[in-house]
This record gives sequence, structure tokens and C-alpha cells, in this order.
Amino acid sequence: MFEKILENVNAKPPLVHCITNYVTVNDCANMVLACGGSPIMADDINEVEEITAICNALVINIGTLNERTVRSMIKAGQKANRLGLPVILDPVGAGASSLRTKTVFELLKEVKFSVIRGNVSEIKTIQLGNGTTKGVDADLSDAVTDDNLDQMVAFAKTLSEKTGAIIAITGAIDIVADNQKALIIRNGHAMMSRITGTGCMLTTVVGSYCGANPEDILMATAAAVSNMGLCGELAFEKIQNQNGGTASFRIALIDFMSQMDMGTLRGGIKVETR
Amino acid sequence: MFEKILENVNAKPPLVHCITNYVTVNDCANMVLACGGSPIMADDINEVEEITAICNALVINIGTLNERTVRSMIKAGQKANRLGLPVILDPVGAGASSLRTKTVFELLKEVKFSVIRGNVSEIKTIQLGNGTTKGVDADLSDAVTDDNLDQMVAFAKTLSEKTGAIIAITGAIDIVADNQKALIIRNGHAMMSRITGTGCMLTTVVGSYCGANPEDILMATAAAVSNMGLCGELAFEKIQNQNGGTASFRIALIDFMSQMDMGTLRGGIKVETR
Amino acid sequence: MFEKILENVNAKPPLVHCITNYVTVNDCANMVLACGGSPIMADDINEVEEITAICNALVINIGTLNERTVRSMIKAGQKANRLGLPVILDPVGAGASSLRTKTVFELLKEVKFSVIRGNVSEIKTIQLGNGTTKGVDADLSDAVTDDNLDQMVAFAKTLSEKTGAIIAITGAIDIVADNQKALIIRNGHAMMSRITGTGCMLTTVVGSYCGANPEDILMATAAAVSNMGLCGELAFEKIQNQNGGTASFRIALIDFMSQMDMGTLRGGIKVETR
Repeated sequence: MFEKILENVNAKPPLVHCITNYVTVNDCANMVLACGGSPIMADDINEVEEITAICNALVINIGTLNERTVRSMIKAGQKANRLGLPVILDPVGAGASSLRTKTVFELLKEVKFSVIRGNVSEIKTIQLGNGTTKGVDADLSDAVTDDNLDQMVAFAKTLSEKTGAIIAITGAIDIVADNQKALIIRNGHAMMSRITGTGCMLTTVVGSYCGANPEDILMATAAAVSNMGLCGELAFEKIQNQNGGTASFRIALIDFMSQMDMGTLRGGIKVETR
Repeated sequence: MFEKILENVNAKPPLVHCITNYVTVNDCANMVLACGGSPIMADDINEVEEITAICNALVINIGTLNERTVRSMIKAGQKANRLGLPVILDPVGAGASSLRTKTVFELLKEVKFSVIRGNVSEIKTIQLGNGTTKGVDADLSDAVTDDNLDQMVAFAKTLSEKTGAIIAITGAIDIVADNQKALIIRNGHAMMSRITGTGCMLTTVVGSYCGANPEDILMATAAAVSNMGLCGELAFEKIQNQNGGTASFRIALIDFMSQMDMGTLRGGIKVETR
Repeated sequence: MFEKILENVNAKPPLVHCITNYVTVNDCANMVLACGGSPIMADDINEVEEITAICNALVINIGTLNERTVRSMIKAGQKANRLGLPVILDPVGAGASSLRTKTVFELLKEVKFSVIRGNVSEIKTIQLGNGTTKGVDADLSDAVTDDNLDQMVAFAKTLSEKTGAIIAITGAIDIVADNQKALIIRNGHAMMSRITGTGCMLTTVVGSYCGANPEDILMATAAAVSNMGLCGELAFEKIQNQNGGTASFRIALIDFMSQMDMGTLRGGIKVETR
């Protein structure tokens, strides 16, 4: 179901402008390259508009936000809006500090986002205005489960209606939704939460896929989420065979993204629509 | 001897707030995860107090200090002090520039540290007020050896007395001391100095273990130092078998931390008390 | 032909001060260590002069420039000039934004560089004052090929004459030139462009080799370019045998640099002089 999305990435490799945190920035750049895009990290307010203008998508990640970079995020986001480029938000740690929560609301007010991708606690913070985020990881009590899935799907659709963005809630079960339709994705592996940056990397894959598929943001986002999850499954299988640990898992995760082909993805995706 | 320390980490995975350098920050985050904690990197002065408040320990690393982040370090450190949380200092490059030396003394004046972990040149700088640090690596003439070990142990105890912190001097031979007791640790491998960030990563493991063991900072620190050294030994053995180089060593180092169990640690620790 | 260069690196391991971007900084630090040097990353304006003064070379990389760090680059560069230390410029993304182009010209005006290393689009921007750089990667239409090689060699020599720096244009075919002589280097592998930071890492190897060989900057630069390319070839061969992807390639690249010896290099270099 994601053939067209991947074909477009291959046909027109997207340039992706990332204003992101310094913790996972290297993994993000390598993940953009691995998934078929080309990354540009630039955050000085005097160049972000020009950089956005030569790109196909903009990814904004508040993982290590500061006053200087928040100004750049807004300026770049508004430029992308004027140019009609997809803008993706990763609200890392929204709910963990009032600065983060406030910044997310400021960004939502100033910039129109195409996709918001976060863990369930971060996304709930956006809906509720305050959160129970335990640091930068989701609070366990928030988790999407089969029991609350219908409710969470409805929640995602409502938030999409409210924000105008595709909502991607990722965790053990992933939900990608617009205001009418939701895709439930069951790819992934628990080990993805034992390395830093899985979420950040995924957001840059979303940015890459959306950059090459601006006319189908919902499916581009779902393809990224499913593909990333599948890479996590394959990576876990590989390190088990080699008795590797979490650092080997990270290497394998990026490796599989760089080697992904349509046949493997077709055979591995676990997606249903609600 | 470290059973209780590791049990507490597993029982109550610590959240660790790191204000650290951008060179090794990704390795630090992954190392915190590998050793059983959960990392949060946040350095904006408007959120550091809130972030510290939800954490179990604070790690301050001056590797790429600047005026903005030094202010945040002090504010976060004072908050951690008020909350009674362990605060760990990694005085990277103290002695290499007057800014670094001055900053370390300012931090020591404004914040009460639970542990100070550095190489011997950095730690000597703290004692003497100026140093012979050759960049961010220890000066060879400073090295702890069997010949000067008694003298260095006495030095560490004196500095602990003076600062109120556990002193961890790491190198070929490691010393972890309070004002009365010192543990001499002979784990580790010379290849650990051929990658960047071994010291930084160790400091975050110290932070994680102290976060879960605030009532036994000395043993928590010693456990971290010994465990890290053992991972270095195992990593070297592994890459020798696979003909790997320094980058493979780094991956193996984090891998072994993520796979460490009490049996392996018990069999590998080389610790004596003086 | 590079025996002496490598011997000097081994005999007197160079300390290399890097003011560089936060995307690839960890790889750069590890690459300096892998090639036999010792890295120091420091960018606060209040310490850069002191740090430069204890080092053997200074590397300036504008990959994530901002107002604060540009001031530090100039100050450190001028200090290095006064001390007669090699200064290497990596004009990442010159031509991609007017800020980057303007900054490169400001740096060239304020600091005397020993080597300028960039892709062909970046180097053309320096000559022409504006560029067609597509983000941080070279524009395909600019590529050095066998058809335009004579012309590009002449171009590199002219730019060297103009700037007083050794010019290193790297891509599928590499050119390292002073105003009279050029070395054409055909080491390397296409996969080097599928990871981030190959160029940045190479620039730090150039800095390390120049730091240990200040009397032969041309050959030190050529040795770094050839060696890095050879590591790329060996890394590609290795991951093909192991069915690895781009992240494994990155690990292997640094591994091979850390394991390089004169015999391997002698057998692998593909260099001619024009």
C-alpha cells in the first residue's frame, strides 16, 4: 500500500531542513540519508528562511530547545507555510516542563503543521494543555492498548480536526490519523525504547517521505511509521542472532532503513484502517 | 559487592538530568539507557529547575561550556541541592583554559556536589587551582601508578574532605574515595582512551547509579567505575576476535553495558579497599 | 609517498582544536583519535585562544554556524595565525545561504587558512562569490570528471594562488593543489556520500596530519584525502561481505582509519600529480 510513497522518494530524493536537538542530530541526519533523503541542519535565524526555501520539507524538534532556536523554528515554519511545504513537529518532552508546553503552543499558534508526531503523553499534552510526561518518555499510564484503542483513535481524529495536522501517536501500537481516517500500525519492537532518538529519527523519516509526497501526507506518515517499526523488528532479530546489545541495535536500525526495499516492506507491514 | 546498587537501578530506573557537552551527548544518553536509567538532556535556563525536579540525579559536564549553559548548570545544581538529589560534576578539561578552571571553581562554590569524576589532571586542577591538563586528556606525568598510589589515595581523601564530594579519579588505575575510605579499581582497558567520551559516559553511569542509590554514593560510584571498566575489557576482547577498530569498540562498550548482569560483574570486578 | 607524513603523526600525536558543527562533531572527535591525533572541541569566545595555543592545528567548520560561534572562529583563527599553526577551513554549505557565503568571505578576510577543503560546489562558491550548492551536498552539474579535470585542476591552482591556501576539492575524483602542483586522488567510494559527515571527518584528518606536518601542508592534505578514500573503499568491501547498511559503513570507516598502517596505505593509494 505504500508503493507510490517510496517510489516518489526514490524518484525525487527530498531535501529535508531539520531544526532539531543536539542529542540525536547525527542519527537524524543519517536516518534521512538512509531513507532516501538529504538532510540539512541549520538553525541560525539569519539563514533558516533561505535554507527552508531550497528544501522539500521542514522538521521541527524541540528536544533541546532554547530561546535562540525557538525563534528560528517559528521563522522557518512560517516560511515553509508560505511556500506550501510540509512542516513536521516533534514536541519532545511536551508536558515535562512548562517551557516545552508553552513552546509547543506558541509553535502551533504561529505555524501550520502538516504532521505532529509524538508519544502519547506528548500528544495528550497538546490536547489537554498540560501533561504527565515523565521526562522525554511516555507515561506508562497513558499507553495505547487494545482496550483503549477506539478511544485513542477518536482522540487522534479530534486533535487532527482541531490542529489541521495529521496526528501520529507512536508507541507499542501506533496511530496515524487525519480527522476522518486512522491507520493502526503494529510494527515495531520494545527495544526501540532502549536507545535514544528512535522518535526523533522517525520524525525525520516522516519529513523525508512527506517532502517527496506533499499531496498525500497521511499515507506518507503512515509509511514512515510502518517502515521504521519494521526496521526495529529486523534489527532486533539481527542482534539476537549476533548477541548484540543496544548500540548494535541502533546500527542495525539505520542499516535496515538504508537497505529497505518495497518487497521487504510489503511483506512486513502490519497496518489496518479504522 | 555491588549487588544492592544494581538491584536498586533495576527496581527504580533513575531519571537523569544531564547538562552536558554536544560532542558526546548522544553516547551519554545511550549509556544512561544501557545502564538502566532514562536520560533527559535540557539546558535552557527557563526549564532546568523543572527538569531537575522530576529527576533522580543531575549530571553537569563542562566539555563544551559556554556562558549560557554555565548559568543553567548553577541554577539546576542549586535546585538539586534544595531537593537533596545527587549532583555529579565532570570537570572536562579543567586546567586546559582559565575559563574552564574558573567555571569549575564557580560551580564548586555555588553547588554542593555528591561526586566529582575526572581524570587525574582535572582533579589535580581542582585541588591546586591550576593544572597541567593537556587538552581534555590527562597529562602523562600525572598518571596514577602503583608507585604513587598511596600518595594519590591520600590526595583523593583530602580533596573529598575539602569538597564534601566523593572523588573519582579515573585512568589506568581508578580511585574512588570519600574522606576516610578509598576503593582502588583496576578494571578497564587502554583502548578506552582511543575513543571520545569514555569519561563523559562513565559520569552519566555514575549519575544513574547514584540516582537510584542516593544513600550510598560511594559504592554507587565505585560500581559504575568498575562496571564501565569491565565493559571496556569485554569490548576489547570482542573486537580483537572480530578484527574491529575503535568505532566497533565504542559500539561494543555500550552493548556490554546494556547486557551487564550481576554474575558477569561479580566475576569481573577488580576492586580493593584502602 | 606519504611515509613521512604518517611517521610524524605517530611520533608527535597532534592536538587538534575543532570549532565545528553539532551534527557530526562526535564522528569528528572519534576520527581525529582514529587517525592518531587528539581532539579538543571548544567554541566559547572566552577560551578559544587559550585552547588554540595548546594545540597543533585548528579546524574551522561552519556546518551549523551561528553568530556566537563565528566570532569564536575568527578569534581562534587569528590566534593560530599569530602562532603559525595550520588552520583548516571546511566551508560546509557555502552557497546554500547568503549567511554561509558571507561568513566564508569574512573568515577568508580575517584569517589566513593553510587548507580549504570542500566539495566542488562549496569551493566554486569561494571563487565565484555565489554558488549553486544544493544544501550541503555538491550540485551534480559541478562534479569533477575526467572530461573537465584539466580545467578543474587549473581552477584549484588559481584559487590557491588567490587565497594562499592549499585547495582540496573532494568528490568522486579529488584534487589537492597549491598554486603550482596538483595531486589527483581516485580513492574513495560512492557510499561515502550516503552517510553524514564524511567531509567533516576528512577535514579533521587533514587538520591532524597538518598539525604533525606543518612544513608540508600539501602532502599532509593529500595523505589525509587518500587515506580517507581508501578507508571508504575498505569499509564498503567489509559491509558487502557482512550485508551491512550505511550505519555499519560509518563504523567500518572509522575502524579502518584506526587500523591503517603504512603497508595498507602504500598498497591502496591512487594518486597522480599534474
